Amino acid sequence: MGKNLTTRAEDYSKWYNELVIKADLAENSGVRGCMVIKPYGFAIWERMQAELDRMFKETGHQNAYFPLFIPKSYFSKEASHVDGFAKECAVVTHYRLKNDPDGNGIIVDPEAKLEEELIVRPTSETIIWDTYRKWIQSYRDLPLLINQWANVVRWELRTRLFLRTAEFLWQEGHTAHATKDEAIAEAEQMMNIYAEFVENFMAIPVIKGLKTESERFAGALETYCIEALMQDGKALQAGTSHFLGQNFAKAFDVKFANKEGKQDYVWATSWGVSTRLIGALIMTHSDDNGLVLPPNLAPDQVVIVPIYRDDEQFEATSNVANELMAELRSLGIRVKFDNRDTHKPGWKFNEYELKGVPVRIAIGPKDVENGTVEVARRDTLSKEMMNKSEAASAIKELLDEIQKNLFTKAIDFRKENTTEVSSYSEFKEVLESNGGFILAHWDGTPETEEQIKNETKATIRCIPIDADDASGSCMVTGKPSARKVIFAKAY
Amino acid sequence: MGKNLTTRAEDYSKWYNELVIKADLAENSGVRGCMVIKPYGFAIWERMQAELDRMFKETGHQNAYFPLFIPKSYFSKEASHVDGFAKECAVVTHYRLKNDPDGNGIIVDPEAKLEEELIVRPTSETIIWDTYRKWIQSYRDLPLLINQWANVVRWELRTRLFLRTAEFLWQEGHTAHATKDEAIAEAEQMMNIYAEFVENFMAIPVIKGLKTESERFAGALETYCIEALMQDGKALQAGTSHFLGQNFAKAFDVKFANKEGKQDYVWATSWGVSTRLIGALIMTHSDDNGLVLPPNLAPDQVVIVPIYRDDEQFEATSNVANELMAELRSLGIRVKFDNRDTHKPGWKFNEYELKGVPVRIAIGPKDVENGTVEVARRDTLSKEMMNKSEAASAIKELLDEIQKNLFTKAIDFRKENTTEVSSYSEFKEVLESNGGFILAHWDGTPETEEQIKNETKATIRCIPIDADDASGSCMVTGKPSARKVIFAKAY
Repeated sequence: MGKNLTTRAEDYSKWYNELVIKADLAENSGVRGCMVIKPYGFAIWERMQAELDRMFKETGHQNAYFPLFIPKSYFSKEASHVDGFAKECAVVTHYRLKNDPDGNGIIVDPEAKLEEELIVRPTSETIIWDTYRKWIQSYRDLPLLINQWANVVRWELRTRLFLRTAEFLWQEGHTAHATKDEAIAEAEQMMNIYAEFVENFMAIPVIKGLKTESERFAGALETYCIEALMQDGKALQAGTSHFLGQNFAKAFDVKFANKEGKQDYVWATSWGVSTRLIGALIMTHSDDNGLVLPPNLAPDQVVIVPIYRDDEQFEATSNVANELMAELRSLGIRVKFDNRDTHKPGWKFNEYELKGVPVRIAIGPKDVENGTVEVARRDTLSKEMMNKSEAASAIKELLDEIQKNLFTKAIDFRKENTTEVSSYSEFKEVLESNGGFILAHWDGTPETEEQIKNETKATIRCIPIDADDASGSCMVTGKPSARKVIFAKAY
Repeated sequence: MGKNLTTRAEDYSKWYNELVIKADLAENSGVRGCMVIKPYGFAIWERMQAELDRMFKETGHQNAYFPLFIPKSYFSKEASHVDGFAKECAVVTHYRLKNDPDGNGIIVDPEAKLEEELIVRPTSETIIWDTYRKWIQSYRDLPLLINQWANVVRWELRTRLFLRTAEFLWQEGHTAHATKDEAIAEAEQMMNIYAEFVENFMAIPVIKGLKTESERFAGALETYCIEALMQDGKALQAGTSHFLGQNFAKAFDVKFANKEGKQDYVWATSWGVSTRLIGALIMTHSDDNGLVLPPNLAPDQVVIVPIYRDDEQFEATSNVANELMAELRSLGIRVKFDNRDTHKPGWKFNEYELKGVPVRIAIGPKDVENGTVEVARRDTLSKEMMNKSEAASAIKELLDEIQKNLFTKAIDFRKENTTEVSSYSEFKEVLESNGGFILAHWDGTPETEEQIKNETKATIRCIPIDADDASGSCMVTGKPSARKVIFAKAY
């Protein structure tokens, strides 16, 4: 097809990297580990943001904005939190540049050293809970349901576009509650909202579950997560929601007077999804021809390409295209008419396939004559002729069908690549030969979890919530296990 | 009124600071110079963002995202640019924390020093033009019309909420063009879009003009600006749009092949507005009772407060309120029904006055009987009774009227506080006694501009674009002047 895209079978990782670049989603910048999100990639992120923001507001959350910088002393207040993030923090130590007196250009002014170093936020619990102390006095101030859209920085040594970057964009919810039960209910609600968003909007099936103690967020008592399976058999954590107990309230002394007038520490949650989801999107739906976008996320759901040899044909096909475009728009469909004369139709077909536009319409002189249009689906690469008069409503249905089809395909793939095993040898064999999600019994100890990780590189992705309990014995130690958990190698 | 708000006459600056806090817009954080934008303040910013984003997209711009960090060497490439920003840059020098071996808690790991320091972006020209080099080869890649919504950091010594903070939120447009004329047209277009937005949406009148050479953006050949006049007679720069010539293209070697196949440097613009505009909003419309919001910007345009003594009255007034709320919503009006039983009506009236909600409706038992509602305007503090059946459509008109009234009032204020002077002594007298915009002849030299600034603290806000030319002689030197320019003390 002239796309020069490495196939997935050849080298999955290379395919991914090439696709991100060639579909114009993002690229590496001159700053180590930091990406540039290009307009096409950012338009997808904007669609994700708009839908999530709507869901957050519908459930009573408000947006706010907290500082980028966190004083080192705040950051250190919650012990397990600082342990979890200290090794990946960008630190601001100075606030001024100046001309080098020795004439070597611009240097950092040694006299402009900060009294206390500032951490560039890797996550905002500490600065936010320092603020909540001022906002919360009484049960009347609760619940406090806040979300922030922000950039965060985690200094990663090995980075990959969208999947792991030193700076990334995300939203982080931070809520405060009067009771433990209410905070747990909030953490569960947000996991459910993430699952609904990722499944219905992004067409990516996920498994809801709990992280094991060793995989929990630094500072959380419980981490709820949604886990997705990528085409190469590796898992990707698509979102997390944390029940933080009273850890941050205690670290930042956030108390409230309850209805009885007694002082108590506030209960907390935090939850986030990031631009990493774009990586999940790519590795769930895309193929050897390029990106495949679910219609809900596609900046352009339909593109119309005219086919013509002369001005007369150009005008005739353009007329039909403009009519159809108006009809599609009146049905709320995002449509683009690519009438550039700088590129040939074949080049355009290729381009929109690479960029994953769900539906491509071609209109040639024959179509003008016959009152038809040619409609191609990106997901199945199949084409059909439609009567122009019926095309708009048929395309509206087709977009729904594509959205559903992508989800069904992904569900089927996950089913085929989920294996229940009963022994450690079987576990290793499946992991080696096929990968995917592996359901196995585990004795519940961090030691066994660590042993499996060291020996196989597989981690416990989650203890699934929606599965039936079925006790058995640990595949490694033979000790009792209440239920199978999900293992996989992971991104 | 129980608001405990310092009056503007007493102390304008104190009034401003108190208002920002009491209206729940923003507050200082524990990080020097960095603010927390609270949910109510952020909701106003979200409305501004949505409208600006719509206007940018309508004129062909796309959003993208570039790194927060800029390598020091990039930053230094454009000489006047680095001169302008070097003294206010936050610098990242390390990427890891660790436990102090001496047991003093967490310290910055001296072994994790970056090879090259990273600047936290104060503006993104340098990192963006380093990227554009890869994106632009031919005239077919132009124009490139990109906008970014981002946080930026400028290390200011004296900060004030919204007006001057170390970190602030803004949008920065960065465009690339094949010709000088096209780039100038873009810079002018964006100044016009800003003026349209600030006048029509925020109800703040502005004067469009050019900055003098000494007030230009660091790296610009021409800076277009919009200048607003605050209630205390000081000016506020509300937005700027820069024609950057080929300065950044040359510094970052961004060339393109024109239609004739010849290589040429690309022409550039950049333009931005920030959360500073919220400061302008406050200081244009608000009064001694608190914030006054133009309906276009108000998160809640209408609030309904029920007045009742018992459950029966609560139910009756709530029924009317719910009906009216539904009618208002169907007209696209943002309305809130405050039926909290934790606060008395008087407290609520006070609260919504402080928060600037444009229209407040009170419904009591008498109103239920008579089929009326009491409607209060925030801008004039006047009240009227309306028949409930006609209220919704009347309120829709009232909101338009309030929007217009605020703009008219601000225009009138500016007229009253704009003075043309013909001598330097008159200039100083007006500046001292009244302030405001002062139109005066100036000889066009940076030296005279500097002298006036040193002697009076007034700066040239702009060389107005929409004024008639009328030559004269400089009020200081007597040298010829082509037209009067606008002086003021400024925020």
